[in-house]
Amino acid sequence: MNERPLILVSNDDSINAKGVRELISRLVRLGDVVVVCPDAPRSGQSMAITVNDPLRISPVPDFMGARMYKTTGTPVDCIKLAMHHILKRRPDMVVSGINHGSNASVNELYSGTMGAACEGCAFGIPSVGFSLTDHNPDADFSGCLRAVDLISEAVLTRGLPEGICLNVNVPDTKDEPAELRVCTPCRAHWDDEYKEYIDPAGHKFYLLSGELINDEPDNETTDLWCLKHGIISVVPTSVNRRLIMPETLGWLQALQEKY
Amino acid sequence: MNERPLILVSNDDSINAKGVRELISRLVRLGDVVVVCPDAPRSGQSMAITVNDPLRISPVPDFMGARMYKTTGTPVDCIKLAMHHILKRRPDMVVSGINHGSNASVNELYSGTMGAACEGCAFGIPSVGFSLTDHNPDADFSGCLRAVDLISEAVLTRGLPEGICLNVNVPDTKDEPAELRVCTPCRAHWDDEYKEYIDPAGHKFYLLSGELINDEPDNETTDLWCLKHGIISVVPTSVNRRLIMPETLGWLQALQEKY
Repeated sequence: MNERPLILVSNDDSINAKGVRELISRLVRLGDVVVVCPDAPRSGQSMAITVNDPLRISPVPDFMGARMYKTTGTPVDCIKLAMHHILKRRPDMVVSGINHGSNASVNELYSGTMGAACEGCAFGIPSVGFSLTDHNPDADFSGCLRAVDLISEAVLTRGLPEGICLNVNVPDTKDEPAELRVCTPCRAHWDDEYKEYIDPAGHKFYLLSGELINDEPDNETTDLWCLKHGIISVVPTSVNRRLIMPETLGWLQALQEKY
Repeated sequence: MNERPLILVSNDDSINAKGVRELISRLVRLGDVVVVCPDAPRSGQSMAITVNDPLRISPVPDFMGARMYKTTGTPVDCIKLAMHHILKRRPDMVVSGINHGSNASVNELYSGTMGAACEGCAFGIPSVGFSLTDHNPDADFSGCLRAVDLISEAVLTRGLPEGICLNVNVPDTKDEPAELRVCTPCRAHWDDEYKEYIDPAGHKFYLLSGELINDEPDNETTDLWCLKHGIISVVPTSVNRRLIMPETLGWLQALQEKY
């Protein structure tokens, strides 16, 4: 008897986000879906894990046939708790998102959405994160759905190489994007990252803010270029940090002898 | 007039940890040192950033001539706040640690110590994280100091390629390690990651626990092998996720046409 594929879903915008419900609505056609999300927004959590503090898991009502759980942890905690204490068998795919907001370029490093996908990848499971470049809680995800269908089915069928997961970003355009492109993460940096305030006692505090500056705006092979031009970006991302030793680090080899 | 090099120091064990003080004691010989650390332990924070919540910076008394600050943020927040609101000029090097506990193999993904080093690297600054494989708050860091001297001076002098920082782990051995080796992060996984408890109301909760299982125990080129054999491991780590597209992802290119 053939079992349906098992798909583990998470995100960083919480179990209540619209984006994850849109994602589930597509994935239930591909397999059995179990959803394990944070109980509240956990944006910017990267691959953070909860150390020392207790973690709790609570079921929430099924959605379109998917079993749903919330946890008190980070996106990575959600994947770990699912693997160790919720799922009865190993999932065939981990899908994270759909994030409300871009995770292109350097944003990927801080993204909880991609944290969950990277954790799936670290478990050796084919994993994908989806994001829409619109922070609005009521964003329109319809432009994402064809890409979700196509990529999820392909990843489920083909798998991904060890240590590689996909970071998919969909531009917030009025019409469905007409093109999807495999590209590289753009060189970019955040400028002016904090807004400064003075509290009633006269002490300064800071809130995260700023503007993402594209350091290679004319490079058509990058995710930021694609998104700006209405194209869906697909970036293969490595959580396997085995590098081929760059030539430039010959001096590092020399340190071995020097030590 | 030549300025002394400026070295930015952070960690994830807090401004009060012994490890960062040991690190500072060596780095003050190489340049002007400014220290910006979390005000409390922030282990397992990876590259998490604080979104929406206010961040505060407070000076603490100088240590061995180094200017010292604590913040209410994560290790990555510390680097960002230093870059935007504390430092008067761009640092020549970022050094994070010395962590109380191993950040070898997959631990690197979750490490706040390496989060700070990776953030320095994302700013384009040569960056290194140091860890000792001993969690004890009163650990003996003397076995780390020669490696700190040698590597910090070399990184300051030679720099590092774009997107690459170093993850240095020192084994907790009775005698100073006799060897240092450039190696790859070992394939390993955490087994049995949570201990389950029942609270007074009868509800389950979980605390992070578990055991790191080495998936390639005989591979002498890995950090875990080196550490087990009393050798200091130096792993070049990429935060630049520009991959050469693996051959195996030809089907992904085909998706472009299919979409």
